[in-house]
Amino acid sequence: MVADTTVHRRDELLGAAKRLFAERGFQATSVRDIAEAMDITAGSLYAHIEGKDDLLWEIVSAAADRFFAAVEPIAASGLVSTEKLRRVIAAHVEVVTGDLTAAAVYSTEWRHLSDERRRDFASRRDAYEALVRRLVRECIREGTFADVDEKFATLLILSSINWIYQWYRPDGPMTPEEIARKLTDMLFNGLRRPGG
Amino acid sequence: MVADTTVHRRDELLGAAKRLFAERGFQATSVRDIAEAMDITAGSLYAHIEGKDDLLWEIVSAAADRFFAAVEPIAASGLVSTEKLRRVIAAHVEVVTGDLTAAAVYSTEWRHLSDERRRDFASRRDAYEALVRRLVRECIREGTFADVDEKFATLLILSSINWIYQWYRPDGPMTPEEIARKLTDMLFNGLRRPGG
Repeated sequence: MVADTTVHRRDELLGAAKRLFAERGFQATSVRDIAEAMDITAGSLYAHIEGKDDLLWEIVSAAADRFFAAVEPIAASGLVSTEKLRRVIAAHVEVVTGDLTAAAVYSTEWRHLSDERRRDFASRRDAYEALVRRLVRECIREGTFADVDEKFATLLILSSINWIYQWYRPDGPMTPEEIARKLTDMLFNGLRRPGG
Repeated sequence: MVADTTVHRRDELLGAAKRLFAERGFQATSVRDIAEAMDITAGSLYAHIEGKDDLLWEIVSAAADRFFAAVEPIAASGLVSTEKLRRVIAAHVEVVTGDLTAAAVYSTEWRHLSDERRRDFASRRDAYEALVRRLVRECIREGTFADVDEKFATLLILSSINWIYQWYRPDGPMTPEEIARKLTDMLFNGLRRPGG
């Protein structure tokens, strides 16, 4: 039972930190603020963490893990590349909409990580970008995509799916699946009417 | 000469605040930090401002003004709608890349404005979104765009041009004009090879 309670407390701690980091920003949130949100003293919080950088690191690492776990099996599958890319986009949208607070912290607060952790984070983010870029390249090679600038196309795809946390509302009219489908159709087919 | 010096000091003040807000976030920046960056005392800074909310408001208002000033004449012109939209995107990219620090503060720190100013900001941002959405609607009506979801297409366009501040480097390989052209071509024509 002790272990369960500890895990529960850790989840609660990360949840409180995540909400405060998303609302106020990492730098404006003190360990005391997090302790207050959990209704405990700052002193007892220090039994669990060295400092708030640990919490930020745990939150953005967990988010990165979820992104990779969602898309790697798709990228490694035997599907054709456009279908892989379509499913990768859908999986990414699922992760973002599944935890908007984590997506917000992941997108904006990582820059406040300590130097070493920020480098680690940047290299994982680069690896993620490389995975998407590889799929775009395969689509071009297979001839399903036009001969577009693969780096630029990758940035367009990632920017449009990352920005979703800014406007998505769980009680809005579209499900994550619909968002992903619409977005992919627009990105693949363009806005122009064929021949228009 | 006194007036010139005052104007110069105000620019310097806004520049220092903008850089600090972009680097550390609004909430983690104190009036004292801004004063130190300007090599003056916090006391003498209070002769110029009521509080740092004034500075944030001035920075994001000026950014909003620049966006509107850049795109309104294009929207009001007699060009065909796809050409209007193309030029609006180019003008927006020009404003973002012209002052990346302002774009970063505009995109992420507005949420820390005081309540009334945040509502003002949100209504101007909504008006900007409405302007772009009107152009998308005209493109659909004229038959140059497919019958896409106009709200969703507007979000895709705005998210891809707003995200540019995250990756654009002035010493990078592409000029703002090239970025705008590439982006518009991809958004209008899609990634797929015709018939691919």
